Amino acid sequence: MRIGEGVSLDMTLPPVPPLDSEAVTAARARQKALTKPPGSLGRLEELSIQLAAITGKTPLSLDRKAVIVMAADHGVAAEGVSAYPAEVTPQMVLNFARGGAAINVLARQAGARVVVVDIGVAANFDPATPIRHHKIAPGTQNMARGPAMTRALAEAAITVGLEVVNAEVAKGLDLVATGDMGIGNTTASAAITAALTGQPVATVTGRGTGVDDVGLARKISIIERALAVNKPDSNDPLDVLCKVGGLEIGGLVGVVIGGAANKVPVVIDGFISGAAALVAARLAPEVKPYLIAAHQSVEIGHRVILEQLGLRPLLDLDLRLGEGTGAALAFHLVEAAARILDEMATFAEAGVSDKA
Amino acid sequence: MRIGEGVSLDMTLPPVPPLDSEAVTAARARQKALTKPPGSLGRLEELSIQLAAITGKTPLSLDRKAVIVMAADHGVAAEGVSAYPAEVTPQMVLNFARGGAAINVLARQAGARVVVVDIGVAANFDPATPIRHHKIAPGTQNMARGPAMTRALAEAAITVGLEVVNAEVAKGLDLVATGDMGIGNTTASAAITAALTGQPVATVTGRGTGVDDVGLARKISIIERALAVNKPDSNDPLDVLCKVGGLEIGGLVGVVIGGAANKVPVVIDGFISGAAALVAARLAPEVKPYLIAAHQSVEIGHRVILEQLGLRPLLDLDLRLGEGTGAALAFHLVEAAARILDEMATFAEAGVSDKA
Repeated sequence: MRIGEGVSLDMTLPPVPPLDSEAVTAARARQKALTKPPGSLGRLEELSIQLAAITGKTPLSLDRKAVIVMAADHGVAAEGVSAYPAEVTPQMVLNFARGGAAINVLARQAGARVVVVDIGVAANFDPATPIRHHKIAPGTQNMARGPAMTRALAEAAITVGLEVVNAEVAKGLDLVATGDMGIGNTTASAAITAALTGQPVATVTGRGTGVDDVGLARKISIIERALAVNKPDSNDPLDVLCKVGGLEIGGLVGVVIGGAANKVPVVIDGFISGAAALVAARLAPEVKPYLIAAHQSVEIGHRVILEQLGLRPLLDLDLRLGEGTGAALAFHLVEAAARILDEMATFAEAGVSDKA
Repeated sequence: MRIGEGVSLDMTLPPVPPLDSEAVTAARARQKALTKPPGSLGRLEELSIQLAAITGKTPLSLDRKAVIVMAADHGVAAEGVSAYPAEVTPQMVLNFARGGAAINVLARQAGARVVVVDIGVAANFDPATPIRHHKIAPGTQNMARGPAMTRALAEAAITVGLEVVNAEVAKGLDLVATGDMGIGNTTASAAITAALTGQPVATVTGRGTGVDDVGLARKISIIERALAVNKPDSNDPLDVLCKVGGLEIGGLVGVVIGGAANKVPVVIDGFISGAAALVAARLAPEVKPYLIAAHQSVEIGHRVILEQLGLRPLLDLDLRLGEGTGAALAFHLVEAAARILDEMATFAEAGVSDKA
């Protein structure tokens, strides 16, 4: 049992180690000695310090990278909150498995493996499908009529995330990203964001895959109903997760906490991943310095989440796809930060005159 | 002889071909058919359309990439406008040649070759140094006392840029970026920006490599003096380039125009590259749709340049190093845009249901 902001869990969360202050001092000193004006690489320099703090490694070498894509269905999809039918969730899982989706393309470019996890898709996959088979329920219940899942199921989802990331660590993992697939999951993420931050639903709810004005109004009203029906306790992140969350979001909570526990920097994708990171940071605030915000999503609630987490996104490319696509793009920048610290020559090595 | 916005040149600029409208239509249709909500990859989708328009190629495959780093010295450095001594220019060229500078690290990561060009460094390099030896003068004259160079020398600099990019095209070039090295060159770039846009010097002049408040005030006053002494004609971009520009900036003007003439997308780095792109766009406005702005520099004048060119930067990472570093980082995003169009599965191929 473990306490996070006064909340009791029936499960045990792994401890998150402290940051490495000696590595920070060494990284700062090296940044000053590299052949460039100090500070001239801006956020790459800050990132390199954060990577040193998290990993304590020299060189940082981020060769082994993974995007963990958690997939699950949402009972609330029955309310017509998405522009796409729920059958798209399993179809896209198969697309991931065959390598044809955006996340496959972008992860391939970044030299990262894609780990697709069926944590709660409402369809049965052939066991030979090259995904991780961790289905703990065939989707959530409709949160507009009652809790999306039980507290025990939410904890089971977090446990899956912890186990999946531990298995990746066992294979070798220097950098991890969160990704998601689940028709209806911007609805759950907006509900989580509203519940945990106290913001009005309309200010944290966007168009998801692309609903029109009528669809957006319906989506907002469904989320308001779900919050009214379930009354999630804003001081109990697990209560919020189980009542208005999703199985894949619970899984990503586990990925975030498990990554930090293993001293692996965690690159957070967009809105759904952000909602998971927010739940994780409420359960275990010490994960925060392990997080890197990949990008600013088009989804309006994402800004609220990043502010709550104190994170400044690396990219702002009008993305709203999910799957971990923004995180895979950010991998290049995170790796660039590491390579600058690892590979650049110092003034002394290069025989370059320092500041006049 | 060729006319650009009413300006006569003694040299001939290569013609820039029109964009490929059929390729644009095909790329737009393919973006709609790919397994993602339309528009959900935001600026990557726009970029892929631009790449199709420029190159007309299917697949886009941007495998062969180069960063062309033009290096030169500036007579105005004698006025103490930089935080670093002028000897740093040749020292950094040697650092580039040995692979130890930031641009080497970032280009290596992006799979791009670095082409270092001595177009006007005030030091003699061993002919065996693996750089392009195109020195046309040992730096510019001090623009605070008279023209930085003659009109003929400015045209020679542009010609070097055209020749260098043509040589790279002959080797195979799918994507090119501009980079710079030259102590004093933010001073020249601010002077060009003020001259071509009519903005007050103080609103386009930043700290460069890191001068303090006193240094910044001196820098502004030197630029104001250079403009008063030389009276560059804002309607004659070559007059501006020769009176208050730099040899490496002239070389980059040639790279921009030569890239566009060869249907190669040109990724513009920061402030110095931006000043070169502004001169190029005034000489040959048809280059504009061939340009991709890599990032928003910390240098305040850069924003003015991007607005003038109608470009929205891809990245905003507080960079102020130059060398092409921001452009090398942006290569990952440009390549991602191309790969999405080239490699993703369509709804039909993947058996995924389209919008409800």
